Amino acid sequence: MFDPQVLVNIGNHFDLKASVFQAPRRGIYSFSFHVVKVYNRQTIQVNLMQNDYPVISAFAGDQDVTREAASNGVLLMVERDDRVYLKLERGTLMGGWKYSTFSGFLVFPL
Amino acid sequence: MFDPQVLVNIGNHFDLKASVFQAPRRGIYSFSFHVVKVYNRQTIQVNLMQNDYPVISAFAGDQDVTREAASNGVLLMVERDDRVYLKLERGTLMGGWKYSTFSGFLVFPL
Amino acid sequence: MFDPQVLVNIGNHFDLKASVFQAPRRGIYSFSFHVVKVYNRQTIQVNLMQNDYPVISAFAGDQDVTREAASNGVLLMVERDDRVYLKLERGTLMGGWKYSTFSGFLVFPL
Repeated sequence: MFDPQVLVNIGNHFDLKASVFQAPRRGIYSFSFHVVKVYNRQTIQVNLMQNDYPVISAFAGDQDVTREAASNGVLLMVERDDRVYLKLERGTLMGGWKYSTFSGFLVFPL
Repeated sequence: MFDPQVLVNIGNHFDLKASVFQAPRRGIYSFSFHVVKVYNRQTIQVNLMQNDYPVISAFAGDQDVTREAASNGVLLMVERDDRVYLKLERGTLMGGWKYSTFSGFLVFPL
Repeated sequence: MFDPQVLVNIGNHFDLKASVFQAPRRGIYSFSFHVVKVYNRQTIQVNLMQNDYPVISAFAGDQDVTREAASNGVLLMVERDDRVYLKLERGTLMGGWKYSTFSGFLVFPL
């Protein structure tokens, strides 16, 4: 049976706006992300947000590297209709979200 | 139904001592971790331990970056009562485990 | 019941050839990888391949660091008999795949 609680965002088509996950049911979900910055002289901070609350953060700050990812992952207890999404808390993504991924799935319902 | 085989450690509340996962049943589990070091002149090595055996390692060694994560993940066959935890094999974490995460869940029982 | 749709490659025994996952059934699978390069003066790019198509990429390019991982992860809709594997698109891995991992499991069948 198809389980609709899957968010898949692959590679070049990653888009921040479209990537709000709204939970169709209460449960434990697994979320992970890898946000790739291209070469530039700044640090990025990416927050995984649950509703308006930042749950975890990831950083990428190397100034000498062409591409570097800010990655993290977490298991979250999510209520029905909660929104889970990424927020670029610090820095900018020149070149957009290319190569970045954001994935989530229901581990089990509650 | 609530499935108790979940270890969730989020953000600032990460604590090494509390993060020993003891498996309530035999099965395949997914574990992943992101351990964030703050700026300092050393390399950290983090091991994922199953009982007293290191299963996988991750490294963070950039000396010019404010925050960097040592990340890895794995699927593990776990026996009942096995203990799975992180061990800082090398280096120190100034500022503690802030921003670090350690997650695990049962993929399926055996 | 044992579910055979699990690919586990741990630490030192990682081998590119042996790591082709062939899906026994249609479904959504979770894949993640952490490929560790040792110190050398080049950038590596690792692609996660579905059949002959690159789905996502990861990079590691720091030149001053002993070990660094190119990591990414994704949920994939996989057809029966699809092959999923890693490809080193750019650079070389001196010292082989030591410390690298590649994991996948069935999230749910379709």
